[in-house]
Amino acid sequence: MADTDKTVQTGAEALVSTLADHGVSACFANPGTSEMHLVTALDHEPRIHSVLCLFEGVATGAADGHARVTGDPAMTLLHLGAGFLNGGANIHNAKRAWTPMINVIGDHAVPHLRYDAPLTSNILGLAGPNSVWIKSADRVADAGNLAAEAWEASFGPVPGPVSLLLPADTAWTTGGKPGAKRKRPALCAPDAGRITAAAKAVRGAVKPVILINGTALTPAGLAQAARLRAAGIRVLTDTFFPRMARGAGLFAPDRMQYFAEGAMADLEGTDLMLVAGTQVPVAFFAYPGKPSVLVPEGCTPLVIGGPETDSAAILAALAAALGAKDAAPAAVLDLPAAPTGALNAATIGASITRHLPEGSFVSDDGVSNGLPSFLMTGRARPHDWMMLTGGAIGQGLPLALGAAIAAPDRKVLCISGDGAAMYTNQALWSMAREGANVVNVIFVNHSYRILNIELARTGAGNPGRVAEDLLGLGRPEIDWVKLSEAQGVPAVNAATAEEFDAALARAFAQPGPHLIAAHVPAR
Amino acid sequence: MADTDKTVQTGAEALVSTLADHGVSACFANPGTSEMHLVTALDHEPRIHSVLCLFEGVATGAADGHARVTGDPAMTLLHLGAGFLNGGANIHNAKRAWTPMINVIGDHAVPHLRYDAPLTSNILGLAGPNSVWIKSADRVADAGNLAAEAWEASFGPVPGPVSLLLPADTAWTTGGKPGAKRKRPALCAPDAGRITAAAKAVRGAVKPVILINGTALTPAGLAQAARLRAAGIRVLTDTFFPRMARGAGLFAPDRMQYFAEGAMADLEGTDLMLVAGTQVPVAFFAYPGKPSVLVPEGCTPLVIGGPETDSAAILAALAAALGAKDAAPAAVLDLPAAPTGALNAATIGASITRHLPEGSFVSDDGVSNGLPSFLMTGRARPHDWMMLTGGAIGQGLPLALGAAIAAPDRKVLCISGDGAAMYTNQALWSMAREGANVVNVIFVNHSYRILNIELARTGAGNPGRVAEDLLGLGRPEIDWVKLSEAQGVPAVNAATAEEFDAALARAFAQPGPHLIAAHVPAR
Repeated sequence: MADTDKTVQTGAEALVSTLADHGVSACFANPGTSEMHLVTALDHEPRIHSVLCLFEGVATGAADGHARVTGDPAMTLLHLGAGFLNGGANIHNAKRAWTPMINVIGDHAVPHLRYDAPLTSNILGLAGPNSVWIKSADRVADAGNLAAEAWEASFGPVPGPVSLLLPADTAWTTGGKPGAKRKRPALCAPDAGRITAAAKAVRGAVKPVILINGTALTPAGLAQAARLRAAGIRVLTDTFFPRMARGAGLFAPDRMQYFAEGAMADLEGTDLMLVAGTQVPVAFFAYPGKPSVLVPEGCTPLVIGGPETDSAAILAALAAALGAKDAAPAAVLDLPAAPTGALNAATIGASITRHLPEGSFVSDDGVSNGLPSFLMTGRARPHDWMMLTGGAIGQGLPLALGAAIAAPDRKVLCISGDGAAMYTNQALWSMAREGANVVNVIFVNHSYRILNIELARTGAGNPGRVAEDLLGLGRPEIDWVKLSEAQGVPAVNAATAEEFDAALARAFAQPGPHLIAAHVPAR
Repeated sequence: MADTDKTVQTGAEALVSTLADHGVSACFANPGTSEMHLVTALDHEPRIHSVLCLFEGVATGAADGHARVTGDPAMTLLHLGAGFLNGGANIHNAKRAWTPMINVIGDHAVPHLRYDAPLTSNILGLAGPNSVWIKSADRVADAGNLAAEAWEASFGPVPGPVSLLLPADTAWTTGGKPGAKRKRPALCAPDAGRITAAAKAVRGAVKPVILINGTALTPAGLAQAARLRAAGIRVLTDTFFPRMARGAGLFAPDRMQYFAEGAMADLEGTDLMLVAGTQVPVAFFAYPGKPSVLVPEGCTPLVIGGPETDSAAILAALAAALGAKDAAPAAVLDLPAAPTGALNAATIGASITRHLPEGSFVSDDGVSNGLPSFLMTGRARPHDWMMLTGGAIGQGLPLALGAAIAAPDRKVLCISGDGAAMYTNQALWSMAREGANVVNVIFVNHSYRILNIELARTGAGNPGRVAEDLLGLGRPEIDWVKLSEAQGVPAVNAATAEEFDAALARAFAQPGPHLIAAHVPAR
């Protein structure tokens, strides 16, 4: 219970206490003048942990990470249209991760809006495209009920970010009431007819695969996936997924390759592609003369259920329909020896595999250097892996911050490219303030390395000096240790495999945030 | 002339060369995979200076600064909807400064869009509200002409940011043609009838004021403003303006106060408010029981011309209609003595006034600490002052970067709050790479000080610990010297007036970027 007298609630208090009543436990915030009464309401609400973020992209990325860990939406507090825009890229990413999130966007007092003051903008227009629900609480009497509606709407049918605008006069006026309690919507149950059709298709297929995402990537879902694998169905995940349980004791599905030509080669001969908890796969980008849809010729795609569905239940139902036996081709703990010599994506992957603590979360914004770590940690201690699903780099550090706030007793590992980490480097400061247990590994190659690869792939020609400069972070080289220490996060450089391995072991052994600048080759 | 063979131009080349043909001379960029052919086109275009920014908010703020100095739009290169969102707050600010700007937003290839790949978003929807013009170049044959149309549209009628989407297949396909050359639109000329009406109203008024912005704030415009002042009209500028010529030899108008109650007290008794080059003034924010429109009771507002008008021409016409004589109550150079003792906004203002070089540009994102510097520099060497007009903090450093690129032979002073500077701290890196002659003065008070003032003004109650934490940047204190050095910009701390004065003199005496962390009181 909040200590606010509910009979004289302001609109801000009604909104905040209603979200708390529904289990919202964290608010990632960067307030401005129009949000002062929200700040006061949060001040009076002990059930919500308020975290200041020095840039809104940190707030929205952290809310995503918090929700991926808890399963419940977190709240953000954003300052008008400009605050939404600053947080917008990580809202896009959250939408692409099907993450429930409640973005509370302050707005001018309703009577002030018509005068077009400097910070006025069309927030409904700006925020609408990436919101699964959006409304403005223009009357104080509605603030509580709209907060409850926003919470419910964040669960879908397809879960995602919702936007609730709170005009300043609604926030400061008394007469607010707590919103009526809503029931938490569940994901859709599997459709029996589609399960039967899928089972029949499998029986007639020579080389079937099933592409999975969502709840299929929980331990329970993966146990069902293992049964399908034993029944002869290859199990694949999307290239990028919000969260997957991995490591010793768990079935490890294959993963779709990033580049279209690799994915298509890998799928050659596949004649049936079942889809559970996601969409028919498409290439991340188009390239001249290359396919968009990643389904080979002669292969039938069959969507059993999209992201609105409980895909773990789909797998269980399909396994039952096929009479699949319990099977356990689970990963066995297999920790590599301490790597030596040159520091690169592979030796870093070996160290991460060795030291990743049981029960930890990984936030992966590693771009071109993350894959070896992902592959090797399949046999590490049990952990959860969280990826950038929306392609807007700069999610890794904020996501790790939010995960650490949600699970203070677990360790979080963030792996990020240096280009990606610069986007939202302000997340380091919030990690320091909160004492977040995050180990940040920055792949320092002073390059948007992926773009150098892409420049060649798109056939855009050989780079001249200007193009090289547009893809390179050198001149000057960023000193990540200083950048991190400047924001209160202890940091070290690592230039060899030995140095990195020792630094990582030390960082995991200590509480609070750490940063390791891992100097890897640019090519 | 570009070295590209114009008969085999790609869409990207047609776009870039057309903008160069129209005088666009800078591109502030953060490209991604879908922009690789734009990168190649820029590589082949020697007339455009391409500047890599490590975050899109830096790119858009820099394009704003570049345009404020040159009068011509600069180009940005943004990566799909997420890139637009990251740059969106400083696009909002540019819109509120009536700055012409051409945002080139890469998009997926047109046939790829329907598959809803991870980075797909509704860019027309997201970018529309803050664009004065927006189109997508879906056919290669149109790319050149649309670039020319975008350039023209950025000039108005009210100048502002335009958005030109460039799908990747348009960019990579050959068949592009340079756009037909367009004429640069001029601001609207004064309306003779309104001038006559204004002159008549002045003759009947007891206490007239004229509120000015736009070209009225150039040296030529201010000379006309001085004539009006001599004719008995008080001359006021908006609280925030894109650019004003100031210092010795120039007429110094008064400035509208920020807080509504101060502005209204200052205007008491005013019975006529003429408006030239701007809008009828409104309060930045609404507060319970305070007015939105800053026109006192009994005062008639009379808009002679809005921001689409050449306000300098309005002032000249009005002065002629009134038979006003040439008058020169111009500011006289009056440099203060070296300040001593405690470092605060006033002693900083004295040092800035002493050392500000002739012909320099000031980028002011100083929030609660900028006012004394502004007031005192009215008698400094001639310079131009540029302000944050849209209220979205985090513009100061990027704006200074763009100004320095536009005027490499002049000095740029950036004054910024620490909270504001954190938003877009990545601008420091681009300053280092470009050797930009920017002296950055960061007011370090470890606080969103303005919000502590606003919390009291809005009556939101006394802050508890949570509220204090949401408005304070302490715990941990940011080390600005390290943050700056990490990105290649030399930096020093200053804790006394003497230290600051010496540091500022040294910084102006040396080429390239510098940063001074000016430690000022939090209250």
